[in-house]
Amino acid sequence: MKRLIWLLAAAPILAALPDTEIRRVLDDQLTAWNRGDIPAFMQGYDESEATTFVSSTVTKGHAQVLANYIKRYPTRDNMGTLTFSNLEIRPLGAEYAVVIGRFHLERTAKGGGEASGIFTLIFHRTGKGWKIIMDHTS
Amino acid sequence: MKRLIWLLAAAPILAALPDTEIRRVLDDQLTAWNRGDIPAFMQGYDESEATTFVSSTVTKGHAQVLANYIKRYPTRDNMGTLTFSNLEIRPLGAEYAVVIGRFHLERTAKGGGEASGIFTLIFHRTGKGWKIIMDHTS
Repeated sequence: MKRLIWLLAAAPILAALPDTEIRRVLDDQLTAWNRGDIPAFMQGYDESEATTFVSSTVTKGHAQVLANYIKRYPTRDNMGTLTFSNLEIRPLGAEYAVVIGRFHLERTAKGGGEASGIFTLIFHRTGKGWKIIMDHTS
Repeated sequence: MKRLIWLLAAAPILAALPDTEIRRVLDDQLTAWNRGDIPAFMQGYDESEATTFVSSTVTKGHAQVLANYIKRYPTRDNMGTLTFSNLEIRPLGAEYAVVIGRFHLERTAKGGGEASGIFTLIFHRTGKGWKIIMDHTS
């Protein structure tokens, strides 16, 4: 009985955890991006060959996704200042979750001008915490 | 022991099932689309308020997604002939899966011309079978 009460008391905390941890991963990504550190930004993604980035093409593997980011955002000006908004987190069982959100890139004209879009991220609870295994950005 | 052997024998079959069933849902969607039946095509999506379609905007709810399809593809010419390719199915636990693929719409100039793109679909195993709960198409 005591154990049941403990479980009931802990349930809302346990349920809130993935949401909180996923938001922290995204916050850490923003902090990394906005100090110009793409490799640290990429720590939000699972360090796996299966990690997938979808936009107009499909890119496979953490290393290739990292390489594409570095190629696309070669200078601090190109990286601009990133913000996320309208984040919506939906659990997919206990080990996965999907996040929909909008990104906005505040940039100088020299950096490429403002940019924005919508992303769908699939997170997986790995041994190293919640990590993005798939990113569809458009 | 007998039970264990049975389980071991059944394991590959059980593992293959979601993949087969998801492919059947997608095949049924193609068949429905290519006979001009958008409501039947929409049976591939979970009949829920939470069903989400992401493109340049986010649309919520099976009814609204259906309404948007009907608005965007008002005539048989606009619907054209749909094919999927490069399908890649990845399980997310036992109850969810993600599918990446390409769509191609063969259309007359009058119908709007050819169109193609990439989609990420999240499937959920519901009481009515595997259904799309989220679709990001770009």
